[in-house]
Amino acid sequence: MLVVMNARASEAEARAVCEKIRRMGLTPHPMPGEGRTAIGITGNPGPLDPLAFESMPGVLQAIPVTKPYKLVGREIKPDDSVVRVGPEKARLGGGAFSVIAGPCAIESREQALAAARAVKAAGAVLFRGGAYKPRTSPYAFQGLGEEGLEILKEVRAETGLGIVTEAVDPPSMEKVAAVADMVQIGARNMQNYSLLRLAGGCGRPVLLKRGMSATLEELLMAAEYVLSEGNYDVVLCERGVRTFADHTRNTLDLAIVPAVKRLSHLPILVDPSHGTGRREKVEPLALAALAAGADGLLVEVHPDPDAALSDGPQSLAPDAFGELMAKLPKLAAALGRKMAEK
Amino acid sequence: MLVVMNARASEAEARAVCEKIRRMGLTPHPMPGEGRTAIGITGNPGPLDPLAFESMPGVLQAIPVTKPYKLVGREIKPDDSVVRVGPEKARLGGGAFSVIAGPCAIESREQALAAARAVKAAGAVLFRGGAYKPRTSPYAFQGLGEEGLEILKEVRAETGLGIVTEAVDPPSMEKVAAVADMVQIGARNMQNYSLLRLAGGCGRPVLLKRGMSATLEELLMAAEYVLSEGNYDVVLCERGVRTFADHTRNTLDLAIVPAVKRLSHLPILVDPSHGTGRREKVEPLALAALAAGADGLLVEVHPDPDAALSDGPQSLAPDAFGELMAKLPKLAAALGRKMAEK
Amino acid sequence: MLVVMNARASEAEARAVCEKIRRMGLTPHPMPGEGRTAIGITGNPGPLDPLAFESMPGVLQAIPVTKPYKLVGREIKPDDSVVRVGPEKARLGGGAFSVIAGPCAIESREQALAAARAVKAAGAVLFRGGAYKPRTSPYAFQGLGEEGLEILKEVRAETGLGIVTEAVDPPSMEKVAAVADMVQIGARNMQNYSLLRLAGGCGRPVLLKRGMSATLEELLMAAEYVLSEGNYDVVLCERGVRTFADHTRNTLDLAIVPAVKRLSHLPILVDPSHGTGRREKVEPLALAALAAGADGLLVEVHPDPDAALSDGPQSLAPDAFGELMAKLPKLAAALGRKMAEK
Amino acid sequence: MLVVMNARASEAEARAVCEKIRRMGLTPHPMPGEGRTAIGITGNPGPLDPLAFESMPGVLQAIPVTKPYKLVGREIKPDDSVVRVGPEKARLGGGAFSVIAGPCAIESREQALAAARAVKAAGAVLFRGGAYKPRTSPYAFQGLGEEGLEILKEVRAETGLGIVTEAVDPPSMEKVAAVADMVQIGARNMQNYSLLRLAGGCGRPVLLKRGMSATLEELLMAAEYVLSEGNYDVVLCERGVRTFADHTRNTLDLAIVPAVKRLSHLPILVDPSHGTGRREKVEPLALAALAAGADGLLVEVHPDPDAALSDGPQSLAPDAFGELMAKLPKLAAALGRKMAEK
Repeated sequence: MLVVMNARASEAEARAVCEKIRRMGLTPHPMPGEGRTAIGITGNPGPLDPLAFESMPGVLQAIPVTKPYKLVGREIKPDDSVVRVGPEKARLGGGAFSVIAGPCAIESREQALAAARAVKAAGAVLFRGGAYKPRTSPYAFQGLGEEGLEILKEVRAETGLGIVTEAVDPPSMEKVAAVADMVQIGARNMQNYSLLRLAGGCGRPVLLKRGMSATLEELLMAAEYVLSEGNYDVVLCERGVRTFADHTRNTLDLAIVPAVKRLSHLPILVDPSHGTGRREKVEPLALAALAAGADGLLVEVHPDPDAALSDGPQSLAPDAFGELMAKLPKLAAALGRKMAEK
Repeated sequence: MLVVMNARASEAEARAVCEKIRRMGLTPHPMPGEGRTAIGITGNPGPLDPLAFESMPGVLQAIPVTKPYKLVGREIKPDDSVVRVGPEKARLGGGAFSVIAGPCAIESREQALAAARAVKAAGAVLFRGGAYKPRTSPYAFQGLGEEGLEILKEVRAETGLGIVTEAVDPPSMEKVAAVADMVQIGARNMQNYSLLRLAGGCGRPVLLKRGMSATLEELLMAAEYVLSEGNYDVVLCERGVRTFADHTRNTLDLAIVPAVKRLSHLPILVDPSHGTGRREKVEPLALAALAAGADGLLVEVHPDPDAALSDGPQSLAPDAFGELMAKLPKLAAALGRKMAEK
Repeated sequence: MLVVMNARASEAEARAVCEKIRRMGLTPHPMPGEGRTAIGITGNPGPLDPLAFESMPGVLQAIPVTKPYKLVGREIKPDDSVVRVGPEKARLGGGAFSVIAGPCAIESREQALAAARAVKAAGAVLFRGGAYKPRTSPYAFQGLGEEGLEILKEVRAETGLGIVTEAVDPPSMEKVAAVADMVQIGARNMQNYSLLRLAGGCGRPVLLKRGMSATLEELLMAAEYVLSEGNYDVVLCERGVRTFADHTRNTLDLAIVPAVKRLSHLPILVDPSHGTGRREKVEPLALAALAAGADGLLVEVHPDPDAALSDGPQSLAPDAFGELMAKLPKLAAALGRKMAEK
Repeated sequence: MLVVMNARASEAEARAVCEKIRRMGLTPHPMPGEGRTAIGITGNPGPLDPLAFESMPGVLQAIPVTKPYKLVGREIKPDDSVVRVGPEKARLGGGAFSVIAGPCAIESREQALAAARAVKAAGAVLFRGGAYKPRTSPYAFQGLGEEGLEILKEVRAETGLGIVTEAVDPPSMEKVAAVADMVQIGARNMQNYSLLRLAGGCGRPVLLKRGMSATLEELLMAAEYVLSEGNYDVVLCERGVRTFADHTRNTLDLAIVPAVKRLSHLPILVDPSHGTGRREKVEPLALAALAAGADGLLVEVHPDPDAALSDGPQSLAPDAFGELMAKLPKLAAALGRKMAEK
């Protein structure tokens, strides 16, 4: 059920609706929009009676929701959501194009700082880098853990860039949420519902990557888990799906960008690094992502890609990243859009 | 590195090898086989020198391992592993064909007991049923949790069947391991490496389901995570992969059965319920799984499938399950195999 | 529209219905079944009036058809179709299990005869071998063409086995239909509708292989093309679909066997050679195909697989084929079925 | 084998090399480039001796080719191929961005002319429209055939636009080649090798669409069939591949654009209409195709999409097409490219 307040409804009237919802043992999710506020209701085992709300002052309409998702849908919130991240309140969503960049894994203080200075100089608005790495092999480098988080703090202190880094389980979620400006949920954990609930309560914006074989609906439902815990600052990310095609590591599905925009108010980024797995394809697909309407990019940049401990073949060197960043503003302008400013 | 002891090597000689491995700061994994013992070494960042071991008494050979997996491979353990589960030591692997059956989710004491009595009467050797359910929607029934575990204890007490049930995160892993005879890791968590490590230390045999788009190597590497923590009692399970085909919920990939058998000593079951998603296809694919060489089945059985809270369309009613179970021994005999006895 | 005659209707009454359909400018397709005859109508641009037929003598009912396929559906013909092929009227479909075997390509008189003698001795009921080979590279061996057809004639003359061979275009269709007992349409041509229509008029039974990414409905519609031209002797064949899985050449989709049986009266074979692409997986998947309810197998057998000009890695040597054939009757008996007799 | 002439080699020297190749019973394929001419050799069953050519006057080097394709590869021809089509020599490839547009099927003189006037006015350089339609159902509209070709002639006469239309079998190939300016081979026929050879001898440029589950190598090998018959005017087209994703009809694989550019000199277009199957996603993916480096688009435009006999849901109306065309030049300019002029 979705309760839509009318345009002139007071805050007190909205609060009264939330109060009533709580008295019914359910959870209200007020979502303020440009014109009006809508209040989603979750927790109801079956259908509710619209009349129970439509008779209240300030209520325009109570709409039963038929899609399996509620809070992530455009029905409840027609305007694009904008998520603000980090000390400089970097903007994700709402029209601007934002680039998050950095190495796959934090390997050392030197490597992280070199990467961060380079991506900041080139115009990235947030720094990404993994301290906890989900790796296919138990014998592969698993990330520096807490030591990596300490390095990320230094990176932020020096560069002013907000930090995006991945949490993989409850202990790392706690540590990451204490340090990071945005918590990443990786593709392999997109349906780790327990982790999604923790992300919903972690107090930080969440970057949610699409699973390797996730449908659009499954992606939106994964985001719904986070929102249903009261955390509405979720940004989606397409990073390629698994198909028979063998010319790239994954098949980047750019059509999901307009598909998400149609159904959901959440921002969606594209990761052309994992999406192709090949350095020379990162730039063309990054430009294509902007043209397709994405809200930004997640790009792997390493000061010395050939020496990277993980995902070297898909990482850009700083100069190649600089070339890409120089092309984006012109392309954005041609599309009537602009780059996010810090 | 794999240290193979010669056939007449004493236990003391094998212990000495393990001792040396530990002194090097590495982890020894002794795997006793029919003819001889092999000792896997994990934890080495780079290649080791074979001569360091080949000069020790009782050592036949020290073999560098080139496959990304070590402990799950046939190289380290040429004989089939047999995993014994539950109060009656039900046998999984090693030639016999074993059926694990029960409802998708534990819904009530009555439902669970009715299902358990039916599957025991028909010849299942273990009972499955979820107390913690990973669901696509945060608003769907998520399982009874601890109440479900209490019901499962009763089921075991009454029927004597060992219990297989899923853990989805650290808290449920602890509770499940305290009650269940075998811990299931679901398809969505096949690459939840943190959970796999916990499974490696949980003290119970583990049933590991293949992820929806997992390659054979990724499945074996997921198992490697569990074994690398010292838990060698792992059973794999094929449950269908995601493809374009729309006549079944998933595409059951039976060719992975001989593929696993060739590379790994671990038992592999087949789940024709999730693998097809359609009740009428469960029996033909269950028979096909046996013919393809699987070690057993995981089958959803519900006393009243049409009233099931989850996965009803793919659950068998007790009588249809009984019919399937009546066909298996004849088929097994024709293949020169036999059904697992309790 | 489907006109169902009642059980005691005379042949003259059925002829009168066909006559009327033709007078309407449409095409009648009489399909005699065990109990009664049904007459399919194709060619109508829109819906027809059931009353136009229900008022005729001998007519039980006139049923509008809602599925996109008509002639291949169980609605029009509830009983299994049986297709008889070759000098010995080998039976495909209707309960018996039939094996078609031979090399991928006819390479020489000696190779073909050696293969044919071996597969006949082991119990195959038809001989397969390509004279026209669709090859990915224009520079690869493309088959012996007419010379290959001459060799196939000799094979039949000597062994008495009916011949199954592929046509790839109009000229080869004409030549193949003049010689072969059954015309194969390969996976790459499953949606070559022009060739399917020619197959519909070729005067021979047709073996139609599933395309690499064909859905069940597309497979049935491809068969519908052949039947709509008046050729009802069509046998389907599952040969694996293309997925991300890399442990086999294709992913063999055995669940399509019961899915076809549910919707269509046409027989369905399984090709475990192309379906796996790996010799050692042919036997387990062949046994699984029988257990899943397939009507038979299409197996590649080469007198010297390692010297084969095409598809050697998936071809069985005669002794391995003999071992497989020895296992099938026991398995069939355990399933309450029997092997096709010549 | 690839014989590379040196930069100052005379035409007579190149002819002498071709002569020698022919005397050896092989086929020479001279491919003139910007700087120098290379001559591909096909027809050799095994490796050739480089010295046989390197001793001839004007020859720089003779290089054995290791990739399965020869004539389509960048090794033989490092410069981009440019294909010129139609009365106005519309340019495909070589840097300019070219749009081919028109309805899925020619339905009537009025429909075709209305569509052609609209796409010409908006800036398309070639007109597409099917006279022969491959349809999944034998009972669906199959195109107007020769009547459709007559209409296409009128369209060209009136608008001056060159005509692109599909051939599906030998009879239609003959008729299409007599009328069309460019012959299309559809996705379902990408591995119809017999048709590809006919296309190689048809005397017209060829537009080759990627098959629904074709790998990059299979696409290039299909083109190789056409080139190996002496027709070097081939343009590739990405139109989406079949995956599990259900938010679009196919999954458009834009990463194949840079992948083709890396390996082959052939132009590659993108078809966002089939690639998405949804009208509202055509524009974002069309823009993305340009940004990814494609040489142009193939777009479905219908004067009245909702009344279209086939593929209406993915066809643009003239005004939506006009809006797309207005955005392309600005985007091209931002990327340092320009639109093809007629």
